[in-house]
This record gives sequence, C-alpha cells and structure tokens, in this order.
Amino acid sequence: MQLVRFSVEGRTLSGAVEGDHISVLDRGLFAGSLEKGALAELYRTDEVTLLAPCLPSKIVAIGLNYKAHAAEFNNELPEEPLLFLKPSTSVIGPGDEIKYPSHMSRRVDYEAELAVVIGKKARNVEPGSAREFVLGYTCINDVTARDLQKCDRQWSRAKGFDTFAPIGPWIETELDPDNVMIESFLNGEVKQQSSTSDMIFNVDTLVSYVSKVMTLLPGDVIATGTPSGVGKMTPGDKIEIKVEGIGSLINTVTGG
Amino acid sequence: MQLVRFSVEGRTLSGAVEGDHISVLDRGLFAGSLEKGALAELYRTDEVTLLAPCLPSKIVAIGLNYKAHAAEFNNELPEEPLLFLKPSTSVIGPGDEIKYPSHMSRRVDYEAELAVVIGKKARNVEPGSAREFVLGYTCINDVTARDLQKCDRQWSRAKGFDTFAPIGPWIETELDPDNVMIESFLNGEVKQQSSTSDMIFNVDTLVSYVSKVMTLLPGDVIATGTPSGVGKMTPGDKIEIKVEGIGSLINTVTGG
Repeated sequence: MQLVRFSVEGRTLSGAVEGDHISVLDRGLFAGSLEKGALAELYRTDEVTLLAPCLPSKIVAIGLNYKAHAAEFNNELPEEPLLFLKPSTSVIGPGDEIKYPSHMSRRVDYEAELAVVIGKKARNVEPGSAREFVLGYTCINDVTARDLQKCDRQWSRAKGFDTFAPIGPWIETELDPDNVMIESFLNGEVKQQSSTSDMIFNVDTLVSYVSKVMTLLPGDVIATGTPSGVGKMTPGDKIEIKVEGIGSLINTVTGG
Repeated sequence: MQLVRFSVEGRTLSGAVEGDHISVLDRGLFAGSLEKGALAELYRTDEVTLLAPCLPSKIVAIGLNYKAHAAEFNNELPEEPLLFLKPSTSVIGPGDEIKYPSHMSRRVDYEAELAVVIGKKARNVEPGSAREFVLGYTCINDVTARDLQKCDRQWSRAKGFDTFAPIGPWIETELDPDNVMIESFLNGEVKQQSSTSDMIFNVDTLVSYVSKVMTLLPGDVIATGTPSGVGKMTPGDKIEIKVEGIGSLINTVTGG
C-alpha cells in the first residue's frame, strides 16, 4: 500500500493510493490501524498536491553505510552504525525546492537513501522484531553541504539547513528493504546506482541499534545511508532519488 | 517572570510563578502573549510537579564555546560556532532521573549550560534583533557519554540517549544572559564555576548564527556550551546545574 500526505482544497489529509484515486484515512497514518473511516472521501491523484509523507520529530541518519561510499571518502568501514541527526525543519516534500545556502556554502551534494518510517514507538527493540515497528519505506535525499561537512567537526550544520531533507513521494508498506535498487539521476543522468543489499548494516539492525540509543516515535525516519556516486548540484538542477518498489522523489534546486 | 510547565491533578498546564503560587496561562507559553486568560486558575507551588519548561522540536547545542573547556580537551578555539543536535526524546524535567546507558557506555559526564528558549519562529535573524525571538532562559545539563563521544566520529549517539537533556526548572524571561555565573554541583560539591561572559560566542551571536542555518521554532532550545570542569557521574549521584538569576536544575542518576 502507498500512504500519502497531501493538500487539497486548503486542507491537509492523509490517505492510501488506490490506482488513480486516494482514499482519505480519517485517523491519519500513525493511529495503529490503516482502516478507512466511515466518511472515507476519495480524491483523484491529479487534483491533490503530495506533501512529505510524514513529519518526523527527528531524522536519524546513518553515515558510511555502503562499502563503496565509505571507500569514496577514504574512510574505514565502521564497526557500529555511525549516527547523526537532521532536524525536522529540514524536511520538504516531493516537488519542493532545495534552497542553496549560498551565504555559507559553495558545494551542495545529493545523497540518495532508503528511508525507514517508524510506525509505533520503538525503544530497546531487538533486530528480530524490528519490522513490527516499521510502517513502511520511502525515499530521502540527504542533502549535504560538502564543503562545510569537511571543515566542521560535526555534520549538523552541513546536513541541517532548511530544505536539506526531501522525503517522499509516499510510504510503501509492502517493500522488502534488503535487496532493492537505489539510484539517483541528476538532470536525467544516472549518478548513483546500487542495491540496498550492499548496506553494511541492514534495516533490522539499524532500527534495533537506534532504538537502543534513543526512543523512536511514530513518523520518525531513519535515513539508511547513501551508496557511492554522490556529487554536486547547482541552482536549476533537477534531482531524482529512485528506490525500486517505491518510486521517485523529484526536487529542483534554487538559489539561496 | 518565571514560566513553568507542570502537572497537577492529572493535567499538564503552563503558568507563571508568583511567589508561592502559579497562575495558569490559558494559552500556553508560546502564544505570543503571556497575559492570563479569563479563567486564570491559581495553584500553590508545593502542590504541583514541575516538568521540563518547554518541549523543544530540536535542541541545537554549541560545542567548545568556553575557552577553558576547549583547552581542557586540547581543542583549538573554533572560528565559528560548532553546532550539534540533541533529539527531543532526550528531554527530561527537574527532578527526573538520568538513566545511565550501561549497555553502551562506561563514562557519563554532566555539562552545565545556559539554555536559550526561542519564543517565536526565527529564520535569518541578525544579532541586533536576536533578543526579540527569545522567550527566556533556563538551565540544561548536556549529559554526554564521554567514551562514545571519543570513539564515534559524530556526537549524536554520545549526547542523544533518552534522559540526556534535563531542562529546567523554569524559563526566566528577565535575565541578561551575557554575564551570569554558571555552576554545577555533584553531590553538593562544586565542579564547574564560570561566567557566561567567558563564552566565545554570546547569545545574540548564537541565535543569529543558528537561525541562518535552520529555522528555530517556538520552544526550541539553544544549549550555549559548557565551561571547564566537566566530569563523570555514577548511579546514585545527584547533579545540580545552577545559573545565576535563574535557579537550580537538580536530577539524580540511576542505573540503566
């Protein structure tokens, strides 16, 4: 099932995509049940504007989780997942503009990632039961000011600017996340192409590990790391993040 | 004025302290006006339980912002504020327990800091107008698993465990934050003692700088860095963070 947040006629709603229509979920995406309410409204997909499919209280991102990307930056492979945080204020939805922070950076990169969307509160979860806490999966672009990442000791500034976390286009609930193709296309040209099977730490391991550090809340996102092939964007560019079995997240870059 | 969040008779309310009473603010702390509503209830301070005075969507913390603390870790003084993030799930209130994450860490430190509480949405603010966006100030303990901070490249795990951001006891709206004493006491013994006048980057500079990276929302917190004298806590310890003109934030440490 594909779960969306969308705006229509001035309202913000949640729903499930059914062919060329969206059924409204009266109780939202994180109520523990995805059953349609008594009022279940229907909208045509072409009359709504898709929004980021969740509003995470936090985005926990994983650094260097694909072997070839770690090699690309001459880093040793991590022995444990390397966590960092992106703020909720960095979230934008499909079609929204990535704003280039030209007052601070001269080098802004795309990073295609599989995003895990948490469905219910997860604390101290074991890998074997991790899937029970996952609502589904979507695409995220872990936009990064590469020059600031290199000069700052911490990555929070480089990865924390407003608009630096495009998420979407929807949450796919049926995906097997361990062996799907992940790609990025800059102005239509393929830049990253890998499989989630190349992750060092898989989804179950990551959900468990993060939940042993900090409680994960419904709607929170784990960005599972990017494969090799990252590179720069400039204003006017169109960037597409595509995950097999989910779809494409497309955003444009504008001057800051 | 001292602004509090508190629980009483099963309800969670916001209010202003007036001597030994608290006046309820019907519209909460971030409504743009602190006027009491028509219903203004009164509670005695000794019949309520104080909570963390705000629920930040994010805590933006500043590393190495006191010269003597930077020297303590053999770090060069930063040329720009060094930002990192603590998740909202790490927040606890006055009197709450700091839970020692003994499954991952063997060394957990206190760090006394002045916390700036944002009052209204701040984006791209200049230092000269920073105060307009500040509701007030409180104490924060930037609890840190020092062993993990040293071995991880990023600080998000070391500083992101549940209960690692005690905040309180209230928001003081009248403080001049640029020259107040900041102290910590471990089991009653003074451990840190400095003045906010020793900060490398002052409050106005920090609010402005952070707002040029990420939008600050009402209730968000900037933790302004800790002076020298940090050290370890062990289960059973009582840790007090005291800022002149605000008061004391006291928490205990329990085994994880």
